[in-house]
Amino acid sequence: MERTAYPFSAIVGQELMKLGLILNVVNPSLSGILIRGEKGTAKSTAVRALADILPEIETSGDCPFQCAPEAFPGCPYCGNAVRPAKRRKVRVVELPVSATEDRVVGTIDIEHALKSGEKRIEPGLLASAHRGILYIDEVNLLDDHIVDVLLDSAAMGINTIEREGISFSHPARFILVGTMNPEEGEIRPQLLDRFGLCVNIQGLDDINERIEIIKRREAFELNPESFKKAWIPHQESLVKKIEAAKEIYRDVVISDGILRKIVTLIIDLDIDGHRGEIMMMKTAKTVAAFEQKKEADEEDIGIAAELCLAHRVRRRPFEEVGLDMNAIRQRIRKDMEVENV
Amino acid sequence: MERTAYPFSAIVGQELMKLGLILNVVNPSLSGILIRGEKGTAKSTAVRALADILPEIETSGDCPFQCAPEAFPGCPYCGNAVRPAKRRKVRVVELPVSATEDRVVGTIDIEHALKSGEKRIEPGLLASAHRGILYIDEVNLLDDHIVDVLLDSAAMGINTIEREGISFSHPARFILVGTMNPEEGEIRPQLLDRFGLCVNIQGLDDINERIEIIKRREAFELNPESFKKAWIPHQESLVKKIEAAKEIYRDVVISDGILRKIVTLIIDLDIDGHRGEIMMMKTAKTVAAFEQKKEADEEDIGIAAELCLAHRVRRRPFEEVGLDMNAIRQRIRKDMEVENV
Amino acid sequence: MERTAYPFSAIVGQELMKLGLILNVVNPSLSGILIRGEKGTAKSTAVRALADILPEIETSGDCPFQCAPEAFPGCPYCGNAVRPAKRRKVRVVELPVSATEDRVVGTIDIEHALKSGEKRIEPGLLASAHRGILYIDEVNLLDDHIVDVLLDSAAMGINTIEREGISFSHPARFILVGTMNPEEGEIRPQLLDRFGLCVNIQGLDDINERIEIIKRREAFELNPESFKKAWIPHQESLVKKIEAAKEIYRDVVISDGILRKIVTLIIDLDIDGHRGEIMMMKTAKTVAAFEQKKEADEEDIGIAAELCLAHRVRRRPFEEVGLDMNAIRQRIRKDMEVENV
Amino acid sequence: MERTAYPFSAIVGQELMKLGLILNVVNPSLSGILIRGEKGTAKSTAVRALADILPEIETSGDCPFQCAPEAFPGCPYCGNAVRPAKRRKVRVVELPVSATEDRVVGTIDIEHALKSGEKRIEPGLLASAHRGILYIDEVNLLDDHIVDVLLDSAAMGINTIEREGISFSHPARFILVGTMNPEEGEIRPQLLDRFGLCVNIQGLDDINERIEIIKRREAFELNPESFKKAWIPHQESLVKKIEAAKEIYRDVVISDGILRKIVTLIIDLDIDGHRGEIMMMKTAKTVAAFEQKKEADEEDIGIAAELCLAHRVRRRPFEEVGLDMNAIRQRIRKDMEVENV
Amino acid sequence: MERTAYPFSAIVGQELMKLGLILNVVNPSLSGILIRGEKGTAKSTAVRALADILPEIETSGDCPFQCAPEAFPGCPYCGNAVRPAKRRKVRVVELPVSATEDRVVGTIDIEHALKSGEKRIEPGLLASAHRGILYIDEVNLLDDHIVDVLLDSAAMGINTIEREGISFSHPARFILVGTMNPEEGEIRPQLLDRFGLCVNIQGLDDINERIEIIKRREAFELNPESFKKAWIPHQESLVKKIEAAKEIYRDVVISDGILRKIVTLIIDLDIDGHRGEIMMMKTAKTVAAFEQKKEADEEDIGIAAELCLAHRVRRRPFEEVGLDMNAIRQRIRKDMEVENV
Amino acid sequence: MERTAYPFSAIVGQELMKLGLILNVVNPSLSGILIRGEKGTAKSTAVRALADILPEIETSGDCPFQCAPEAFPGCPYCGNAVRPAKRRKVRVVELPVSATEDRVVGTIDIEHALKSGEKRIEPGLLASAHRGILYIDEVNLLDDHIVDVLLDSAAMGINTIEREGISFSHPARFILVGTMNPEEGEIRPQLLDRFGLCVNIQGLDDINERIEIIKRREAFELNPESFKKAWIPHQESLVKKIEAAKEIYRDVVISDGILRKIVTLIIDLDIDGHRGEIMMMKTAKTVAAFEQKKEADEEDIGIAAELCLAHRVRRRPFEEVGLDMNAIRQRIRKDMEVENV
Repeated sequence: MERTAYPFSAIVGQELMKLGLILNVVNPSLSGILIRGEKGTAKSTAVRALADILPEIETSGDCPFQCAPEAFPGCPYCGNAVRPAKRRKVRVVELPVSATEDRVVGTIDIEHALKSGEKRIEPGLLASAHRGILYIDEVNLLDDHIVDVLLDSAAMGINTIEREGISFSHPARFILVGTMNPEEGEIRPQLLDRFGLCVNIQGLDDINERIEIIKRREAFELNPESFKKAWIPHQESLVKKIEAAKEIYRDVVISDGILRKIVTLIIDLDIDGHRGEIMMMKTAKTVAAFEQKKEADEEDIGIAAELCLAHRVRRRPFEEVGLDMNAIRQRIRKDMEVENV
Repeated sequence: MERTAYPFSAIVGQELMKLGLILNVVNPSLSGILIRGEKGTAKSTAVRALADILPEIETSGDCPFQCAPEAFPGCPYCGNAVRPAKRRKVRVVELPVSATEDRVVGTIDIEHALKSGEKRIEPGLLASAHRGILYIDEVNLLDDHIVDVLLDSAAMGINTIEREGISFSHPARFILVGTMNPEEGEIRPQLLDRFGLCVNIQGLDDINERIEIIKRREAFELNPESFKKAWIPHQESLVKKIEAAKEIYRDVVISDGILRKIVTLIIDLDIDGHRGEIMMMKTAKTVAAFEQKKEADEEDIGIAAELCLAHRVRRRPFEEVGLDMNAIRQRIRKDMEVENV
Repeated sequence: MERTAYPFSAIVGQELMKLGLILNVVNPSLSGILIRGEKGTAKSTAVRALADILPEIETSGDCPFQCAPEAFPGCPYCGNAVRPAKRRKVRVVELPVSATEDRVVGTIDIEHALKSGEKRIEPGLLASAHRGILYIDEVNLLDDHIVDVLLDSAAMGINTIEREGISFSHPARFILVGTMNPEEGEIRPQLLDRFGLCVNIQGLDDINERIEIIKRREAFELNPESFKKAWIPHQESLVKKIEAAKEIYRDVVISDGILRKIVTLIIDLDIDGHRGEIMMMKTAKTVAAFEQKKEADEEDIGIAAELCLAHRVRRRPFEEVGLDMNAIRQRIRKDMEVENV
Repeated sequence: MERTAYPFSAIVGQELMKLGLILNVVNPSLSGILIRGEKGTAKSTAVRALADILPEIETSGDCPFQCAPEAFPGCPYCGNAVRPAKRRKVRVVELPVSATEDRVVGTIDIEHALKSGEKRIEPGLLASAHRGILYIDEVNLLDDHIVDVLLDSAAMGINTIEREGISFSHPARFILVGTMNPEEGEIRPQLLDRFGLCVNIQGLDDINERIEIIKRREAFELNPESFKKAWIPHQESLVKKIEAAKEIYRDVVISDGILRKIVTLIIDLDIDGHRGEIMMMKTAKTVAAFEQKKEADEEDIGIAAELCLAHRVRRRPFEEVGLDMNAIRQRIRKDMEVENV
Repeated sequence: MERTAYPFSAIVGQELMKLGLILNVVNPSLSGILIRGEKGTAKSTAVRALADILPEIETSGDCPFQCAPEAFPGCPYCGNAVRPAKRRKVRVVELPVSATEDRVVGTIDIEHALKSGEKRIEPGLLASAHRGILYIDEVNLLDDHIVDVLLDSAAMGINTIEREGISFSHPARFILVGTMNPEEGEIRPQLLDRFGLCVNIQGLDDINERIEIIKRREAFELNPESFKKAWIPHQESLVKKIEAAKEIYRDVVISDGILRKIVTLIIDLDIDGHRGEIMMMKTAKTVAAFEQKKEADEEDIGIAAELCLAHRVRRRPFEEVGLDMNAIRQRIRKDMEVENV
Repeated sequence: MERTAYPFSAIVGQELMKLGLILNVVNPSLSGILIRGEKGTAKSTAVRALADILPEIETSGDCPFQCAPEAFPGCPYCGNAVRPAKRRKVRVVELPVSATEDRVVGTIDIEHALKSGEKRIEPGLLASAHRGILYIDEVNLLDDHIVDVLLDSAAMGINTIEREGISFSHPARFILVGTMNPEEGEIRPQLLDRFGLCVNIQGLDDINERIEIIKRREAFELNPESFKKAWIPHQESLVKKIEAAKEIYRDVVISDGILRKIVTLIIDLDIDGHRGEIMMMKTAKTVAAFEQKKEADEEDIGIAAELCLAHRVRRRPFEEVGLDMNAIRQRIRKDMEVENV
């Protein structure tokens, strides 16, 4: 049961946010994205709009655990019989802030399990989100206990449903997307660290763009179907670009010289651990793939720095460490160009 | 089971509050209204009085989820059989501060669901409020968890009833109306932001108006039926004005020049995000419609500023940014004129 | 199961408290009374003593929801069959500070409801108190959640019994009487505001009166029956005075000049909202009725000020605003004269 | 299931504490006693020892609600059949600090009640304590909710057992005895006020008395039976004195002059309300009865002041208000003489 | 299910702790011992080692309530049939810090009780510990509610199992042994006061003793059985000494002169109440019995002071009050000599 | 259901952490290891990688309590029938931070137990971890109550499953491995003390090693199977070294001179209790065994000091107490050499 979503490519401005979302679709190992910004800046609109431009996956019938065909023999749905493969779009599953642990994790019908010796499992949102996107609006307001559950799943790639000592585990690997307004409280550092990418956004400065926002919003609300129709060509072009990027990602190379630049940047910025450099390497390769290049170059690591380091350092004296940010920002704007009129 | 309500048009003074309520009835996409004011200023009386002047909608029989005829195939009530369409007034559903989550959200008869394989759903207040008005008195005292539930519903337009891992979703789109006394504590910023409009009111200064209030109140309490009878003509005239406004709203236009003024005002007042300007545009158009005009003009955005910005800025130096507030206030008073003797 | 109560008219002194209680009996729309005072000042004794001097009402048989004959078709008791009308005294229902929400609100036998499709309702204290007096000793110590329930009922005149999503509503209109010792903590402002009247009392100064208190108390404890017998004439005379007042209340008038004085007083004292002036108007009229007058005069508003404003202002510079308090206090003492030896 | 108690009359010293306990046995309307003192001062020993010297009452068979023969028609035990009267000693019922509300208040077998339409009630400690003594060691550590329950019962003389909306009330009038060490926290003022009497005790100063304490304690522990036997004559003499006092209490008089002295003392000490003077009057009369006098005199009010005012004033400048405390203390010691060797 | 324990007599050093444990075994009326000390000082090892040197008691069959043969007619196990007497060692029952109240107190199978009218009781740790030792490691971390339960049982010698208003009481008299590291928080004063004895310990200073500790520990871990075998003679000699002491305790006398010294010491140290002197008297007599003397002498009270007063005074200026502590400490070391190689 | 783990020997750097893990595998009586360090330093990767290099144990069939063949007669699985012995690898069981107590401890099917008289037990994570490794990531964020459960199990070697008073105990001896980021809060001192060893780690300084980390990680993610294949020889060589060490551990000796050095070091560092020296002795012997030596020497205690004392002292002035740390660190690096390319 879903509402008609605003077209992703009709969103005015906010190119870095849109690029970060798209890169995660291209390469799910980027570990998600956190979007921080003041209220009323289309954060949720963008994430919900993502659904229309996602690629397809193959599943084992309508398996509620999103099994790939014949992938998981222990599945209570697929384990009993071979299901015909099905193709469907990757999903955006939304986790409401008020969701209970049962709804997130799933539950077991304990009476049935004990009486019949057979486990009857009610899958939760983590099962629905497997192989897809898990979206949490106001992620900074999430209950601590639900955050613990998410962190455990994200760390192990496994979700365990349990009730009264009986437990059942299933794969739960998802792209975690969160939006938040930092004025309403910060996010726990362990959860922050889980997001591969992070962007900070604010309202647009340009009056004409703002008028454009108002007009598109009213046009969409008064007649959503005709509005969406007008944007179909842009949407289709974007989907094709994403699919092409997915195909070449594994073949994109990155030189030792570029890697040395990444590591030097991380050391200069005094960032803890090795996750920052691993993420930058992957992001740079994904940016290259999105631009249909075979090798990641210096500008790609500039974009990767913008996306990977916002939540890993306090100040970002990028220029001091030798990055031409103007060129980088123009590149970002150009990458997203096709979506804006 | 309802008490006899005081007639809306018999309320003395408080024109801005009354206009804000009426505009929401005309255009539900205004996202509700918050009425803030000291105790004893007829806030609840006004909201409860609203019920008598609301327009009608068509529903699928007596569907407890307020389905429009044939609108929602997954409805546990309408899904099984075609119900004859019915016409009834839009409802004001009151959410008491002490309401439990079950009562607000609804619940599932879990034993029945598991035994028969069929979900038996007990709808909650959010189901009753769909396509209507959800009213919360002392909204600032609402339990945090219930607020989370409301925010999730308001953001997604969907309410999810769940129990022990089984869940059921239904549409829940309502006009949120809240009243509060700011002396008893403030409202959470996320909830505040959900209200499209906001007015601050206080007791009247005019002694004659205050005597009029006392006399009307005692007259109403001693003989409610005859009191209401005397006000029927005013009520009917107001209902007609609301219905006429609903009809022409889609055709009201707003020029780029006016939009530019709105955006400039918002930027000058340093208001976060783009929601303020979108709300002002819609409010201005709704005011124009209420006055049976085909185009929103500068005074309409003055009224829109009064209603949309009270909770979005700290100080309101409207005059400095070029609005003639005296003219605006006279216009508001005139709009409401028909309701006062 | 009730203890033998001390006779109301045998209470020594505390005339204002006794008058406030009586006025509420005469005119239930006065919205109750809060009695604040140090421990050991007969606060609870007075309220419990009230039971003996209350008037009678007509009920539909022994309806546990206190329906008037044929008043409430949805009543699970009266709805099924016509019950012969019964006459009984208005009741004082005591809400203990330790009462659970179930006991206050009532509950639903959910198993029965689901199995038979028929709701079986267990009424709570709010059902018992309908059309009567709800008394809360140590009202300032009441659990916050119970206070919320009371506020919701008092605001809507309706109590909703709910359990697991099934709910049932019945009328719950009662005179709220609370006693408290302010040394043990204050009352929440929203609850304070619900009480129409309020008196502050303290121990008596007069030694002879205090000796009289000790002697009457020991006499009552050693032989309650003979003590009560001695006071029957005073009790009966008071009951007659109350009944007479109830009969003429609707005919008591109040001039615009008097109303202007009330409003001016409220404005001078800078009291929020309009509830203070409405309560003063009603109290003045009820005092007049208790004295068998056809019109409320200036002294009546003096008494009304004493009773209505104690909890609405911080300081009471009544004399400065033109009230002769000595005359007023003598009038109060005279009104209560018949009860003291 | 009870332990062998140490004989009351073998307790060394602490005469005021022992007198206060005895006076409550003579006159239950004294409303109990609070014993405050450092650890290891025989507080609990004294209260538990009380059981052996209590008078007898008549009950309706073995009624778990302690009904007097034919006293309470609504009793689920006595209501069905006439029970032969029985005589037994008044009981000391101990309320452990860890007791749950169910154990204190009692409970209802709800399944049985609903299935058979008949209430099956499990009485709690308040039922057992009716017409007897309820003892709470470490009364200052009692859970707030249990304190609320006690206060409600003490105020109304009624205990209400309820569960899921079904409720049952029975009389619960008891002498409340509490012991506490003020170093471990104070008692809530409302509970403090419920105790008619209060004594503050500390360890003895006299070395010989302390050696006597050690020797008696070891003698009792090594051979309880022979120790108790040796004290039977003292115990019997005390029981007789208590019974004689109970018989003449109603005939003891107190002059207006003595009452005036009591009231003057209370006013001089600036004690709130009238409960202090009522308690002093009763205590003085009970002391007189314990000494087989027909009239309470000035020394009796001296003793009453010692017992009634310790918890009602901060400082006790009794001598300044004209009481010869030396004489009073000698009288107390003499009253208790028979119990010490 | 128990682990092989380290032999008590193989513990190196810590003589005062070992003596305190042994004295409690000889004389259970010493009311337990609290061992306070830094981590890694063999506190728990010593208590768990105690099990092997405990004397035997007679029980009624395998009664889970540890009834002495025919001792408790109300016992649900022994009450129905005469059980053949059995001999078994006194037990050390360990109460884990994470234990629930149900596990400590026991529970009642309520369904069975109501259906069959027969109580089915599941005994808890307090039943197992009756007539034995109840050991709590990290006693300072115990949940407040469990502490309340322990205090109630210790004070009354009775444990009450209750559930939904049904209750069952059984004797629960045990030696309370606690260990704690004061760096991790202090113990509640009421619980502290329950321990008759208390010792403060720390790591040994002597290097050779410390090497001995390491070597014995590794020897024990590599081959527990052969290690224990080597210590059997020391263990048996200690058991015999304990049994001999138990036999003569009742005949040990203590002169008035010695008692006077005890009382004078307590008064000089300004210790509250009389429990300190009673404990010192008993401890001195038990020390004498352990040394097979017929009378307690001055050095015995020195040892008693070391054991009884550590938790009752803040500073211990024992020498100032005339005790030769060097002689006392040598005596303690000599008493424990047989256990060390 | 497990994810493909990264090969242990492919981890770049962090030799001390890897050695500490391996020593625990060789000698489980070392009581586990705590790994503290900033985020992104391969802490979890190392622990999860451990699974592939663990030795084998023999179990009684598939006993869920990990019984050794015929080891535990009370086992609900093995107790009924002799099970054929099975060989399997020691397991790494992961305890998620969000795990409930039921999942950790296990539970009892109470209905079945009462109906059939037979206990049906659902084992928890502590049963799975018996004779293996229990791993807790973010161990500093563990709920206090779960920590209490772990401490009780670790102290007693026994886990007790209980529900409504029925309880069942089984052996639960495991190597506790924890990882944590000290920036996110510290660990409770009692839990810290349970870890025999502790290492503090941080990101590597060497740029080439960091580039190596990035490259290995991407190679592993793009093709895990071929990556693992390349590392099989290193893994097998390490397993052999571990097995050899296990075999000779019991025969490694340690001289009194070396023990004296350990004790002197502990005393000089002012470490509480005796656990530090016992752990150092065992660690030194295990290091010797890992290097196939028959006697522990001075450098072995240097390594033992690095591993055992980090969490027992605040500053580590090891050099001052006579240890050549450079030599020690080179030895550690050499021990681990085989795993790095």
